[in-house]
Amino acid sequence: MAKDFTTRAEDFSKWYNELVIKADLAQNSDVRGCMVIKPYGYSIWESMQSELDRMFKETGHSNAYFPLLIPKSYLSKEADHVDGFAKECAVVTHYRLKNNDEGDGVVVDPEAKLEEELIIRPTSETIIWNTYKGWIQSHRDLPILINQWANVMRWEMRTRIFLRTSEFLWQEGHTAHATKDEAVEETKLMLDVYADFAENFMAVPVIKGGKTENERFPGALDTYCIEALMQDGKALQAGTSHFLGQKFSETFDVKFTDKDGKLKHVWASSWGVSTRLMGALIMSHSDDEGLVVPPKLAPVQVVIVPIYKGEEQLKSISDKLSPIIQGLKKIGIRVKFDNRDNQRPGWKFAQYEFQGVPVRLALGKRDLENGVIEVARRDNKSKETVAFDAVVEHVAQLLEEIQINLFNRAKKYRDEHISEVNSYEEFKEVLKNKGGFVSAHWDGTTETELKIKEETSATIRCIPLENTQESGVCIYSGKPSEQRVLFAKAY
Amino acid sequence: MAKDFTTRAEDFSKWYNELVIKADLAQNSDVRGCMVIKPYGYSIWESMQSELDRMFKETGHSNAYFPLLIPKSYLSKEADHVDGFAKECAVVTHYRLKNNDEGDGVVVDPEAKLEEELIIRPTSETIIWNTYKGWIQSHRDLPILINQWANVMRWEMRTRIFLRTSEFLWQEGHTAHATKDEAVEETKLMLDVYADFAENFMAVPVIKGGKTENERFPGALDTYCIEALMQDGKALQAGTSHFLGQKFSETFDVKFTDKDGKLKHVWASSWGVSTRLMGALIMSHSDDEGLVVPPKLAPVQVVIVPIYKGEEQLKSISDKLSPIIQGLKKIGIRVKFDNRDNQRPGWKFAQYEFQGVPVRLALGKRDLENGVIEVARRDNKSKETVAFDAVVEHVAQLLEEIQINLFNRAKKYRDEHISEVNSYEEFKEVLKNKGGFVSAHWDGTTETELKIKEETSATIRCIPLENTQESGVCIYSGKPSEQRVLFAKAY
Repeated sequence: MAKDFTTRAEDFSKWYNELVIKADLAQNSDVRGCMVIKPYGYSIWESMQSELDRMFKETGHSNAYFPLLIPKSYLSKEADHVDGFAKECAVVTHYRLKNNDEGDGVVVDPEAKLEEELIIRPTSETIIWNTYKGWIQSHRDLPILINQWANVMRWEMRTRIFLRTSEFLWQEGHTAHATKDEAVEETKLMLDVYADFAENFMAVPVIKGGKTENERFPGALDTYCIEALMQDGKALQAGTSHFLGQKFSETFDVKFTDKDGKLKHVWASSWGVSTRLMGALIMSHSDDEGLVVPPKLAPVQVVIVPIYKGEEQLKSISDKLSPIIQGLKKIGIRVKFDNRDNQRPGWKFAQYEFQGVPVRLALGKRDLENGVIEVARRDNKSKETVAFDAVVEHVAQLLEEIQINLFNRAKKYRDEHISEVNSYEEFKEVLKNKGGFVSAHWDGTTETELKIKEETSATIRCIPLENTQESGVCIYSGKPSEQRVLFAKAY
Repeated sequence: MAKDFTTRAEDFSKWYNELVIKADLAQNSDVRGCMVIKPYGYSIWESMQSELDRMFKETGHSNAYFPLLIPKSYLSKEADHVDGFAKECAVVTHYRLKNNDEGDGVVVDPEAKLEEELIIRPTSETIIWNTYKGWIQSHRDLPILINQWANVMRWEMRTRIFLRTSEFLWQEGHTAHATKDEAVEETKLMLDVYADFAENFMAVPVIKGGKTENERFPGALDTYCIEALMQDGKALQAGTSHFLGQKFSETFDVKFTDKDGKLKHVWASSWGVSTRLMGALIMSHSDDEGLVVPPKLAPVQVVIVPIYKGEEQLKSISDKLSPIIQGLKKIGIRVKFDNRDNQRPGWKFAQYEFQGVPVRLALGKRDLENGVIEVARRDNKSKETVAFDAVVEHVAQLLEEIQINLFNRAKKYRDEHISEVNSYEEFKEVLKNKGGFVSAHWDGTTETELKIKEETSATIRCIPLENTQESGVCIYSGKPSEQRVLFAKAY
């Protein structure tokens, strides 16, 4: 299966596109910019959802559902928000089709024109805050800690599966608080939840930071993000958490009576991650033999392939494997026994390797006689032989080891690709020849930020939290600077 | 809380609407026909999803995701399908907004008109079969057993929360098979899964049956359904499973090479249930004191309310409750300990009763001294006193008992409301004065079916599976009939 597969070194972008298709993760649909997420890709997304959902609930959040369509006028109510979102989006103008005059198709019924156009949500702050207005009267109604799993749509001109698609799946948290401190705390709590998820489940090391004014979410006072580094040296924003201040509560007139009896505007946060995480997962760990999935998110953690001739051998092997399969399942390991007889073992090996199943067990006639099983790791391609009795425990440990190894490998690469530079020449040189994050002094102006972007296509990924304060001069303008920020070319 | 609450006898429809709002399940949004599902309502839907998803996976299905938007021309490809679905749907015609000339709002950018309009999916057969075309070449690629959890949109003129909304949440299964028998088997298997879910989780008894030609899904050769009876004597279609024959594979040209080397069209099924099930759940069990939720789907199965004065009493009570709470959690019971001090016990009792929490435990100072807890059932409002040591086991049994009691109660009502009639006079009399299902002979023609509907607004809900064959004459036309069918007024 790995034949006809471009390597990362040859063409990273092509490698990614081929991997997504060949590993059966997703494909483009006939509808411009919209993807079909195939069962195997969707099962990884389900693993992600399930862990994130648990984490959201453990931090006190509940799920809810708000309408897909937003009245056009809602978007224009918040000035920054409309500039950021109202432009490239899908507009519903009619609510009926009718048969055409030729009788061989349908046309839009001009009589069924909406009085006000509706927008397919690009994000839901407006409709949610319009709803919260009815829910909040007193400080007793606060906080509201709600998350929504939903599809959203932004009419992107250049799309790539998982990374930038017109329609994508995501979760969006929208919280309402009595005080500024609480809202800020929530914003940072959720950033921590995202970082925890990225590092401990996706095995993707991330840098937590704040966005510059220019890169902020339209309508936010502060945007925090987690930034990951892909194997081609480009950064990927993996999640964002926004402190919205009182902008949306002012726009939608959401006030509450505080304990002191005074009427005040509510404080807000919003935060989200999307199917884009699938792209981050793929580009962090996968290799020239295909997908690599960290054990904690792998839909199948262990696949067992029997090597047999005839029914009788299969039965002997299956009998021997049965307690091992039960033993693995008992301790919560997701195991698949692939005893299909319409594919050869070699074909199965290639398929599971390409789809990134963390551990493969294989068992043939001779292994049966010797009382051993072959255990193969996907992450480093090593193999070993393990005695039957020790397999369950061995595999359990191995899965933990693989999870850690993947994180460490990605972290080593990431750490090796953070370069401190002190001049614009050096900055450009690193970007061109090495890639990765470039830590440099910046004068704090949007003007400089945009000029650097224009000249090098690198953007400020974030101002790391708890950043060292260090006097210096901006690499571009030479003006004084108080701290370094992280630049990179990015997805 | 139950004050100002309409009773079922007074006005069932008003009772339903008030219940949905007052139990914090959902509300109408500002977008016509679209609802907001509030956290408590959504958590019940999540319970449903979780059980259904497990059942789908246990029967071999995987989840996937297909685009929200469907090209207009896809809908016109299948003639029956377009008549059924293409008419009342949301049409996307543009992909961009721009600032208006006054600078105070946004307008649709006329330059951003789509070449072909896109429809928000009312159901996904067309886009999915257009995709399956690329997935299926050989019999080895079959069967395809895929489910999708998604939002869909049908521009309904008259809407009611959960029962009929323009946007709703659902799952839609779409399967592809090599033979007709397999596809029919799948169609019936999923009907059984739905019936199992309705009866054993929702505690709603259902009748499995086939739809008449007139009531079939547009594009289906056979539509099977589960029909439930609400407390006002109206039927509710709770789920459908369709045998689609080769209609969609012919329309989208999906063929496979069979084992015999011949090229054949693929056989199909599709099946779905939606947030409408929330309506069925509410109208089956709830009463004049509010919502009643069967234990298996209740987000909170047991609520514990301490009755105390001061921190010290609360601490004594909490200490005593701690092992009970742990014991309940250990056996998988969803328990909530509500020790909030900003609401009185009476207020909490009323809230949990109205929201249908199956079991409530209450514990005050005197109970503490006597070593007992008060256990209250939501379903029949009975109370009893149980010794500390016996509480965990007692509650576990009680939850099972309540689940069964709700089913039996609903089944008794349903069985009492199936009336056999032998004349049109009797038919109309039962419909008018008693309601429920009316079992009557019908001549098998759509003409008669539509006339009866026009005159009485009753429809044929289904021809029960394994229906007794019994000669008779049609109550309307007097023509010969071979079996009775079930009529009812319906949601």
